[in-house]
Amino acid sequence: MIGIFDSGVGGLTVVRELLRRSPDASFVYLGDTARLPYGNKSPETIVRFTLEDAAFLVAHGATSLVVACNTMSAHAVDALRKTYPALPIFDVITPAVRVASHLGAKRVGVIGTRATVASGAYDRLLEAQGIEVIARACPLFVPLVEEGWLDDGETKRIVKHYLSPVRQGDVDALILGCTHYPLLAPVIGRFMGRSVSLIDSGAVVVEELLKGVQLDSARQQSYFLTDRSARSEEIAQQWLKRPVNFDKADLLG
Amino acid sequence: MIGIFDSGVGGLTVVRELLRRSPDASFVYLGDTARLPYGNKSPETIVRFTLEDAAFLVAHGATSLVVACNTMSAHAVDALRKTYPALPIFDVITPAVRVASHLGAKRVGVIGTRATVASGAYDRLLEAQGIEVIARACPLFVPLVEEGWLDDGETKRIVKHYLSPVRQGDVDALILGCTHYPLLAPVIGRFMGRSVSLIDSGAVVVEELLKGVQLDSARQQSYFLTDRSARSEEIAQQWLKRPVNFDKADLLG
Repeated sequence: MIGIFDSGVGGLTVVRELLRRSPDASFVYLGDTARLPYGNKSPETIVRFTLEDAAFLVAHGATSLVVACNTMSAHAVDALRKTYPALPIFDVITPAVRVASHLGAKRVGVIGTRATVASGAYDRLLEAQGIEVIARACPLFVPLVEEGWLDDGETKRIVKHYLSPVRQGDVDALILGCTHYPLLAPVIGRFMGRSVSLIDSGAVVVEELLKGVQLDSARQQSYFLTDRSARSEEIAQQWLKRPVNFDKADLLG
Repeated sequence: MIGIFDSGVGGLTVVRELLRRSPDASFVYLGDTARLPYGNKSPETIVRFTLEDAAFLVAHGATSLVVACNTMSAHAVDALRKTYPALPIFDVITPAVRVASHLGAKRVGVIGTRATVASGAYDRLLEAQGIEVIARACPLFVPLVEEGWLDDGETKRIVKHYLSPVRQGDVDALILGCTHYPLLAPVIGRFMGRSVSLIDSGAVVVEELLKGVQLDSARQQSYFLTDRSARSEEIAQQWLKRPVNFDKADLLG
């Protein structure tokens, strides 16, 4: 059983990719919607919340963990590996860096939340491969996606505002370093132009997962949120193109 | 000692108004930044978090409470009054409704988070006064304010997107039903036109507070956040025009 988790519903883009590749995979999803977003929180709080989320998934039978959130991947994966040394743990950052390197990119743009960008996690790994990095925090992208404004005029202007310096930097590839961002891929792709490869950090972690773990194909698929709301169900249904029933996860006892 | 609280830094617009009116007032501020925003959470979660926040303030000497958050005011004030029957408790909704009524408004616009608008709290109170209501949730306003885009082209377009139906409704007044929104008052005011009075729910609660409570003027002023970050300090300094030191509040034990 795969445990997949995020601070909210963003990680469902990873679930979407997993279901596309392997519709019968068993998994349990947790979104910590009661405490989202993690992207503006301090590193110590992010680590604490991540460990609480993981404990919930392990208690629900997870035998591998997919950290479907760049903020947690940037700050809390070491703590997670230390706490669960026997579990395969997949973060969303290293596979994206590997893909950028395989593409032969010389200069790469990285976009994400404030916390992900401030962590410098992508920069360190990319620069170690000799790749130059232009990073940019895009705090309004998550609320735009959650509002459902995926291709509106306002969204196009905000994409232009954030990404102009990245486009001017003449990058070969752009890492979508937040699991919400794949839903903006069409408008981002049009702005950046065809010569720039978009790397979806959520899609590449699924690739990695399918290579690294023997799937249980019993199609046991469950979804938990720490706070349920009608809006989360609307979003999940729009993204996954199917009705999703969320159960309530109570992490705080 | 006044206890003032919000899900985040938004309630600092209430502090700003209090300091403008009474610079020496003693107060303790709490922003639950570790779990913000409350605006998209379920009513039961909002009630639970609000009671935890209030307990922290009472433990820190608060003898009156200002719920500087419309989402909490809409959902959790009854629970708060039941828990602390002896404390004066000020919410941000009833004073704004009273002002609208005093202005002789016939038709009033109300804007706020998704949870505030869905609660119908303003509608019920305004309609009881024979006032017609046009309500609109504006989920992107809080992230825009936190990003500091107070008067940018993108913000103007988003204001137009959300408020066009309210302007077409030919309202006499517009209640800014979220403590972040006063920072957008200039751009909102220009869009709505001079004939529409803007009612700042945070400013009017301070008015109410100054009438209802004997202030302690020892200038003991402290600020707590459940999660501190450099960004919160930047925001506080920009809004209050002074450096603010936040202490860490640990609600969760």
